[in-house]
Amino acid sequence: MVDHRPADLVVTEVRLTPVLVADPPLLNTQGVHQPYTPRLIIEVVTAGGATGLGETYGDAEYLALARPLATALVGRKVTDLNALAALAAHVDGAAGTAGPDGVDAAGLRGVRTADKLRRSVRSGFEVACLDAWGHATGLPVHALLGGAVRDRVPYGAYLFYRWERHPDGLGEPDDWGAALDPAGIVAQARRFADRYGFTSFKLKGGVFPPDQEAAAIRALAAAFPGRPLRLDPNGAWSVPTALQVADALADVLTYLEDPVSGTGAMARVAAGTTIPLATNMCVTTFEELPEAIARDAVRIVLSDHHYWGGLHATRELAALCRTFGLGLAMHSNTHLGISLAAMTHVAATVPDLDHACDTHYPWQTEDVLTERLAFRDGHLDVGDAPGLGVTLDRDRLAVLHHRWLADDGTYRNRDDAAAMRRVHPDWTTPPVPRW
Amino acid sequence: MVDHRPADLVVTEVRLTPVLVADPPLLNTQGVHQPYTPRLIIEVVTAGGATGLGETYGDAEYLALARPLATALVGRKVTDLNALAALAAHVDGAAGTAGPDGVDAAGLRGVRTADKLRRSVRSGFEVACLDAWGHATGLPVHALLGGAVRDRVPYGAYLFYRWERHPDGLGEPDDWGAALDPAGIVAQARRFADRYGFTSFKLKGGVFPPDQEAAAIRALAAAFPGRPLRLDPNGAWSVPTALQVADALADVLTYLEDPVSGTGAMARVAAGTTIPLATNMCVTTFEELPEAIARDAVRIVLSDHHYWGGLHATRELAALCRTFGLGLAMHSNTHLGISLAAMTHVAATVPDLDHACDTHYPWQTEDVLTERLAFRDGHLDVGDAPGLGVTLDRDRLAVLHHRWLADDGTYRNRDDAAAMRRVHPDWTTPPVPRW
Ligand SMILES: [Mg+2]
Ligand SMILES: [Mg+2]
Repeated sequence: MVDHRPADLVVTEVRLTPVLVADPPLLNTQGVHQPYTPRLIIEVVTAGGATGLGETYGDAEYLALARPLATALVGRKVTDLNALAALAAHVDGAAGTAGPDGVDAAGLRGVRTADKLRRSVRSGFEVACLDAWGHATGLPVHALLGGAVRDRVPYGAYLFYRWERHPDGLGEPDDWGAALDPAGIVAQARRFADRYGFTSFKLKGGVFPPDQEAAAIRALAAAFPGRPLRLDPNGAWSVPTALQVADALADVLTYLEDPVSGTGAMARVAAGTTIPLATNMCVTTFEELPEAIARDAVRIVLSDHHYWGGLHATRELAALCRTFGLGLAMHSNTHLGISLAAMTHVAATVPDLDHACDTHYPWQTEDVLTERLAFRDGHLDVGDAPGLGVTLDRDRLAVLHHRWLADDGTYRNRDDAAAMRRVHPDWTTPPVPRW
Repeated sequence: MVDHRPADLVVTEVRLTPVLVADPPLLNTQGVHQPYTPRLIIEVVTAGGATGLGETYGDAEYLALARPLATALVGRKVTDLNALAALAAHVDGAAGTAGPDGVDAAGLRGVRTADKLRRSVRSGFEVACLDAWGHATGLPVHALLGGAVRDRVPYGAYLFYRWERHPDGLGEPDDWGAALDPAGIVAQARRFADRYGFTSFKLKGGVFPPDQEAAAIRALAAAFPGRPLRLDPNGAWSVPTALQVADALADVLTYLEDPVSGTGAMARVAAGTTIPLATNMCVTTFEELPEAIARDAVRIVLSDHHYWGGLHATRELAALCRTFGLGLAMHSNTHLGISLAAMTHVAATVPDLDHACDTHYPWQTEDVLTERLAFRDGHLDVGDAPGLGVTLDRDRLAVLHHRWLADDGTYRNRDDAAAMRRVHPDWTTPPVPRW
């Protein structure tokens, strides 16, 4: 009856492979995506011969935290997920890698702290352990999280203002073309809808003056009547500007995402509009939730399993949102198929997923998988394949790792302002509020 | 590598066995424990031949909810835990078993609602599924919850005012003797400490006027200097009385548990004392948390995995408490070793377990296990045996089930007031505040 040997679940090896993956010239309020962005691929190998895959940010500060954790994980079981936080803190302390708290108030994920970095690193290891455990026992990751409550997860189109090409002939070309006005955004949305079946649309704003972005939303509403629309200027607006835009778009926006920076400003906007506010900036950790709840600053939390510390932590966040009547959906940044699969598995287990999840994945033309995840009718199937249900393509991994090795440091840390300086040499990250 | 077949995890049979177990004449504010109390033992059998054990309340209204859920569970996988809530709600709807909400404002677990009953029933099935899954894969239940972060769980002595025997020669005698004054309580505490190694002590109050119970706490403080002490009158006091007792015992109580009834009254007491307030009455569901947090009514939530809906739900509660700076410990009522094992597994996975857990188990002289769980130095070892690590004694189960079958209805529903009426014929559940 017991046909599985727990000793097989002991970790014997952890491989860390930083890669650089192509990223199109997508615009945001801080600048533009660089031609390549760093990611870290984590492989956890068990005594029984199962291998699990995880993925997280690949910037230098994340790598510095990941390396000692990889060493410390050897000899532990892949089921030992609750101990990862203490293990990560312990190796940080020993290695002196934690760094100071609250060092960087910029960034598109709110105030950056050492704890947030640690959580993002830990999430990659947790996912790799779950994937290995799933392969060892024949169970999908969602089963290891208590089981799926839906067999497919809805995703939405993530629209970006963008250039046609990176400057100076850099990066990998694609055929999406430029999108710098309402017509360009509608054309992009139409291609997303046709190709992937997406029926909700989010525009990354904070790039042009708010009236131009509001015009793009109006154009989307005309082109896709009745479809869920969202706008996310990444905190670039002032409270009065946010209230003006909210008023102008109240009839067409499902929610307004991070119109302003900081919980206090979000609360003032929330008090003045009927449009629900969503965030992946003012609330990105458990510590930030109580104030946001007390001040009624947000109605929807956009979870990102990297930020929150993994798939179990995402489920805990879902319980918090449910308890306090907050909506839950999912954020997505530049990432590969491993993280998309992880996101899909955890989203499948959350009963009250209120909106289609964001997905940046269609912008990523490169991956480290033998087979890309495929959206059908705007959804990803969850499936019952063991683990995450994805397979590593070692050749592709080697190619993208070689790119990282060959890089002179230009792309090893994501820097959207630096990329913008190739075109506008005086560019610096604009202070908020920008408008 | 994949040596486990997920199809083996499909449920082929669910057995429900109501039992009556002996309960000593323990006093509380509602009356006295009956000689026997009903519990429901749940067995979940998988296609692969694994059997999992669960336990929950056995009163008629719980049995009515459990029966259709048992039928509906057949054909599902034991990993399908997140779907249990929807499944339970579905079969309730079909069977018309849900009953009205908020029908009973009495009871020692706060306002009773249909949802609370459902959660308690569901928890028994979830535990049985986890136990079966553990047996099928050789993993302990704690591993299926993300892994233990401690190898033993601390418990405290649960002191009761009690009679020596049940009236009229009923029930099963024990050798604890009566405890009706401070000296009796201290003697009981000493026996608990000597026999089990407990080093913290909780007195169930609400039985005698508050000054007598305060005197018992004083006597405990003298007998066990520096040890954690708690007092729980189950909401029987008025706010002024609670504040008086809190003031009198501020130097010796670790926390005061449910001194008054209702979140509003708890908030008023909390505002007037430095002693932290704990509860397993005013907050027993996720829905009750936001108000309690907003009003700062409690500092410690005493979780009970039956109330909260299972082991995953208990971990979600722990995340909520952590996020809002609330302490977490565990409540215990009359139950057997299956529930104690479940409680121990989940407690082992919660990083911030702030106090020794309550345990009623030493009062239960009967069990359905081949081997009783054994406290050592005030702790239970967590262990790595598959599942819950306990084994059903079918002969004992048959004996206790036969007692249930033979019962004329007197004991099939716990009723502490009815038991008190054998001695005080005019007794009714005292209204609160009693003092
Ligand atoms: Mg955003
Ligand atoms: Mg209590």
